[in-house]
Amino acid sequence: MPETDIGPYRPPLRLYVADALAPSAIIRLGSDQAHYLQHVMRRKPGDAVALFNGRDGEWSATIEKFGKTSAEARVGERLRPQATAPDLWLVFAPVKRARLDFMVQKAVELGVSAIKPVLTRFTVVERVKETRLIANAIEAAEQCGRLDVPEVAEPQPLMRLLDAWPAGRRLYFCDEAGDAQPLAAALKADAPQPAAMLIGPEGGFHPDERAALRALPAVTPVTLGPRILRADTAAIAALAIWQSLAGDWRST
Amino acid sequence: MPETDIGPYRPPLRLYVADALAPSAIIRLGSDQAHYLQHVMRRKPGDAVALFNGRDGEWSATIEKFGKTSAEARVGERLRPQATAPDLWLVFAPVKRARLDFMVQKAVELGVSAIKPVLTRFTVVERVKETRLIANAIEAAEQCGRLDVPEVAEPQPLMRLLDAWPAGRRLYFCDEAGDAQPLAAALKADAPQPAAMLIGPEGGFHPDERAALRALPAVTPVTLGPRILRADTAAIAALAIWQSLAGDWRST
Repeated sequence: MPETDIGPYRPPLRLYVADALAPSAIIRLGSDQAHYLQHVMRRKPGDAVALFNGRDGEWSATIEKFGKTSAEARVGERLRPQATAPDLWLVFAPVKRARLDFMVQKAVELGVSAIKPVLTRFTVVERVKETRLIANAIEAAEQCGRLDVPEVAEPQPLMRLLDAWPAGRRLYFCDEAGDAQPLAAALKADAPQPAAMLIGPEGGFHPDERAALRALPAVTPVTLGPRILRADTAAIAALAIWQSLAGDWRST
Repeated sequence: MPETDIGPYRPPLRLYVADALAPSAIIRLGSDQAHYLQHVMRRKPGDAVALFNGRDGEWSATIEKFGKTSAEARVGERLRPQATAPDLWLVFAPVKRARLDFMVQKAVELGVSAIKPVLTRFTVVERVKETRLIANAIEAAEQCGRLDVPEVAEPQPLMRLLDAWPAGRRLYFCDEAGDAQPLAAALKADAPQPAAMLIGPEGGFHPDERAALRALPAVTPVTLGPRILRADTAAIAALAIWQSLAGDWRST
């Protein structure tokens, strides 16, 4: 048997669309997706793609035609029903561009329901291109097999977010100060949903912010081990541990 | 009280050295470290640094003088004794350069004892600059507060590593095929040390490799949730979960 029969696994091409998905629906794809399909992935009319919109599950579809700045696909059958995803927010102080892109991509792969940048006293990066974050989130969702794209919120001051904190959502505050319990211990004792992870800026939180956080009943301070983690490492680690002990990694 | 009194946390400057550390020892720093201290971090003779060598703990030291391509530091007192770190290897198929740098940095922060690149049937990146990986590992160790630098092994074929697999070291094989138990469930049932995490290439393992892995008594196949993770996300997630349930993140 020639070895070329077995190649590496290539995930199917998946595209996120806004329109409703139903049998035989014609879905118009915008210029970015049309360009990607035709010129990057070399797809032709008649080729298959999968579509999802965050509401109707995942559907097979066939490329009908390419226009100059658009394309059309015809919806086939439903491949997967829409499923309820864990409700976990990532709340974080933005980091520099490459790491920020990376953090958003990883958070999407790790199944967060919302990405909420917050500005803290020691946040160095104050400008966040939301459109870039959203584009990153969509691309990551397409590639990791999710059926939805998490909400990407506008950056807002941490204190404003805390003032309007929704009742019933537990906020795990990853506190570098280190006198809190380990995240896994907190989740073993009690792992409620909805939840949120809060990751501070590289320089940590201002003492006033730490005091405000620790005074909130919704907040559980936690630690992530004895070493100093960069913000992106801390975010990925905390989300993975939550999914393992409280989210959808618990069963196969 | 002026707000400028409280600034963001800045970890102390730490340098990894090869020489033995003892009171009043004079440590010669090479050109890279001398350049970093003098020109990047603007340190002057008389300024403090911390030194560690992976054997003698962490020591305070004072910069004595800068030469043209070197510097000297005089060792003061011991700040922390050498501690035993968890014995966890990261075994992974190399990814492209930026992600590889990133993966090494994260693995060091997450406390691995060794980084072992392996070549698999579907490994695309076969050239790995070991000196670059080692430099990355040292820098990450200096920044994250570790007292040692993990071993960075030469890339070797996966099958050769498996043939010589050390007795008693449990190998968690993060298998994308998805019929294995979740990593957290495996660790809750039994969390032996020493251990190793195996992360495959982006295209997954060849069926022959999967069969060989699953036939080894040292191997426990595990899954990391329902979404497709990139190799670097999978590595960080798996290491963080292991540290949380079997390593040194279990107590504060």
